[in-house]
Amino acid sequence: MNNKIIYLDNNATTKIDEKVLESMLPYMKEEYANPSSMYDFSKKSSNAIKEARGVIKDFVNAADEKEIIFTSCGTESANTAIRGVLNYNKNKKHIITTKVEHPCVLNVYKHLEKQGYKVDYIGVNSNGELDLEQLEQAITPDTALVSVMWANNETGVLNPIEKVSQIIKSKNKEAKLFVDAVQVAGKIPIDVQANGIDLLGISGHKFHAPKGVGALYINSKTMITPLIIGGHQERGKRAGTENVPYIVGLAKAAELAQDSLEFEATEIKRLRDKLESNILKTIYNARLNTGVANRVPNTTNIGFEYIEGELILLHLSDIGICASSGSACTSGSLEPSHVLRAMNVPFTAIHGSIRWSLSRFTTEDEIDYVIEKLPSIIEKVTSISPYQKELEQLKALHSK
Amino acid sequence: MNNKIIYLDNNATTKIDEKVLESMLPYMKEEYANPSSMYDFSKKSSNAIKEARGVIKDFVNAADEKEIIFTSCGTESANTAIRGVLNYNKNKKHIITTKVEHPCVLNVYKHLEKQGYKVDYIGVNSNGELDLEQLEQAITPDTALVSVMWANNETGVLNPIEKVSQIIKSKNKEAKLFVDAVQVAGKIPIDVQANGIDLLGISGHKFHAPKGVGALYINSKTMITPLIIGGHQERGKRAGTENVPYIVGLAKAAELAQDSLEFEATEIKRLRDKLESNILKTIYNARLNTGVANRVPNTTNIGFEYIEGELILLHLSDIGICASSGSACTSGSLEPSHVLRAMNVPFTAIHGSIRWSLSRFTTEDEIDYVIEKLPSIIEKVTSISPYQKELEQLKALHSK
Repeated sequence: MNNKIIYLDNNATTKIDEKVLESMLPYMKEEYANPSSMYDFSKKSSNAIKEARGVIKDFVNAADEKEIIFTSCGTESANTAIRGVLNYNKNKKHIITTKVEHPCVLNVYKHLEKQGYKVDYIGVNSNGELDLEQLEQAITPDTALVSVMWANNETGVLNPIEKVSQIIKSKNKEAKLFVDAVQVAGKIPIDVQANGIDLLGISGHKFHAPKGVGALYINSKTMITPLIIGGHQERGKRAGTENVPYIVGLAKAAELAQDSLEFEATEIKRLRDKLESNILKTIYNARLNTGVANRVPNTTNIGFEYIEGELILLHLSDIGICASSGSACTSGSLEPSHVLRAMNVPFTAIHGSIRWSLSRFTTEDEIDYVIEKLPSIIEKVTSISPYQKELEQLKALHSK
Repeated sequence: MNNKIIYLDNNATTKIDEKVLESMLPYMKEEYANPSSMYDFSKKSSNAIKEARGVIKDFVNAADEKEIIFTSCGTESANTAIRGVLNYNKNKKHIITTKVEHPCVLNVYKHLEKQGYKVDYIGVNSNGELDLEQLEQAITPDTALVSVMWANNETGVLNPIEKVSQIIKSKNKEAKLFVDAVQVAGKIPIDVQANGIDLLGISGHKFHAPKGVGALYINSKTMITPLIIGGHQERGKRAGTENVPYIVGLAKAAELAQDSLEFEATEIKRLRDKLESNILKTIYNARLNTGVANRVPNTTNIGFEYIEGELILLHLSDIGICASSGSACTSGSLEPSHVLRAMNVPFTAIHGSIRWSLSRFTTEDEIDYVIEKLPSIIEKVTSISPYQKELEQLKALHSK
């Protein structure tokens, strides 16, 4: 297995599916026309975008393809949604979000707080599950926007979006619900209508499309002020010459993801569960940081008590295994994960927590390799921990 | 020449150079790591971005690669620059731009006017040359930003940026100069330092990189509030997982463009001049809409008097020739070009004006084909014009 990469960090980014790359190539070669041009040569590009929009409409089950706009990434989708809703109606100054949103979304709210918005951050329990009662109490007539991620990037824990929407709408019909769906796209079915969602953002590179393309669903009753102003592209909601190849690739990736949802729910889940249960069984200072239920099928977050996550990752990297200790967008920071802190993961485990995230390209051999190699790595790192007494106690407990 | 495309609309977009595509492919295949990740596997992606940043720094002759950020398009670069400067210092409410900026930039200013900014639009003479006196008079102590395109997309006319900068700084040292350089990148050398530029935007797909990537130069003395807020990417100035393949492609395209600047100034100019002089010689109702000097080497804008441009383009499209009547971002609109209006192009020519824009892939055969086919197309369209009397007079004048 030398020089081989075992990539278990698919919540950070994914490999482009070969079929996705294939679908994009004609638009990187002969079909290079600007889709806004008037001559016949541009028809293939403009039709390709139209078709892609239809595919994404189906992927999220929007009512109309006019409700889909293409963006350059999940972060742009979130910025467009959040600031678009708030800038369109500047009278309302109250926002609700969660303590465990992706850092990129939280940073938008920190920015808005400085501009005079009041932001309530809803907490989660020790399983990472949202406090719906706190959510309900936070909603006021001044609430412009509620923003709740569908699945958490670090833990995979799913929020009950349909219930969230019902709670919001029962207390304030005008408040808009933005759902960051970056971590569910390709993992579970998305249905914006059934779940009462006003705006929903996805990012291509989390489901085997390239980095640099995303989409935003904005339902027809929701008005926004555009973030990127200029030409008439995307019905005036996102200016800039369309990235035709990536838009085509995004649609292809969505089709492939849709087709493999069943595989995700069975086979990928089986491999994830195998990895998880083996680690928990064989490594005495391992601890599952979430409950087992209500997670996307590809993710597990495991704390290794009394040791440093960064050191584990280093040893894993040495033998070609890629995993992570938090979001890639904050990697390098020494602060423990804000998600695990919100869950009150004990300090003994929070620094040694590792996220493992699989994809449909993950093989059983790879999982077996990790199961084989991890115990000795953890043992090595544990042996230099200053908490030997506590570790002894834990070991005794585990062997019972 | 059947089924062949003769693409003379390179100011709208360009074909991706095969070498650019080649340079991107590894990052669309095996090197898919998120550049922000910590493991070894991500080093190739993060190094690729670092290297690309160095190339773009050299391409625009920035002092430091920290002054370069990557964006998703020219429009995003412009939005980031303009709104970034204004949002960073909200006290100053005066902006100066030109009447002939790209529609995407003008739309940003129209948006800002609604938010309480005062915007002065500097005019041009009949050759499309900027009124520098008017510019000088417009600058006040309250001027936050002056935004002047380097070359006009419709006419190719170059603005004297160094002089513009001197005028601004001599009257208001604090005012920032943003240069939309989308139409000069790859056509003439760019030197932000020699020209006293504070911010400069470029777009990859205008010089044989893909659609969906751009860059923004922000000199180290210029502060901005970011447009897309979130992760720490691009030193906090542009959040979102980096589009590694396109960033690599942008750098490759910049290198290739740099290498072909001499070819652009000689061979492409020769072909453009051949096309232009032949049209003006053989077609009696053709009229050059600019002076011959101070243009990028690849563009010519020719008015065909008393006839409709859209009809000419339709006939050209039928035989595979792609040209345009304005910017692709406004195509489909029936309004005559705001650029030609600002130049006071007579109403007899403004509706029948066609932009021809070449690239290094344009061949002499293609130019000869247009020279051969265009006269009969213009004759056909002219024959159904309601202005036969005026056309007779023009013909008599031309044959003298």
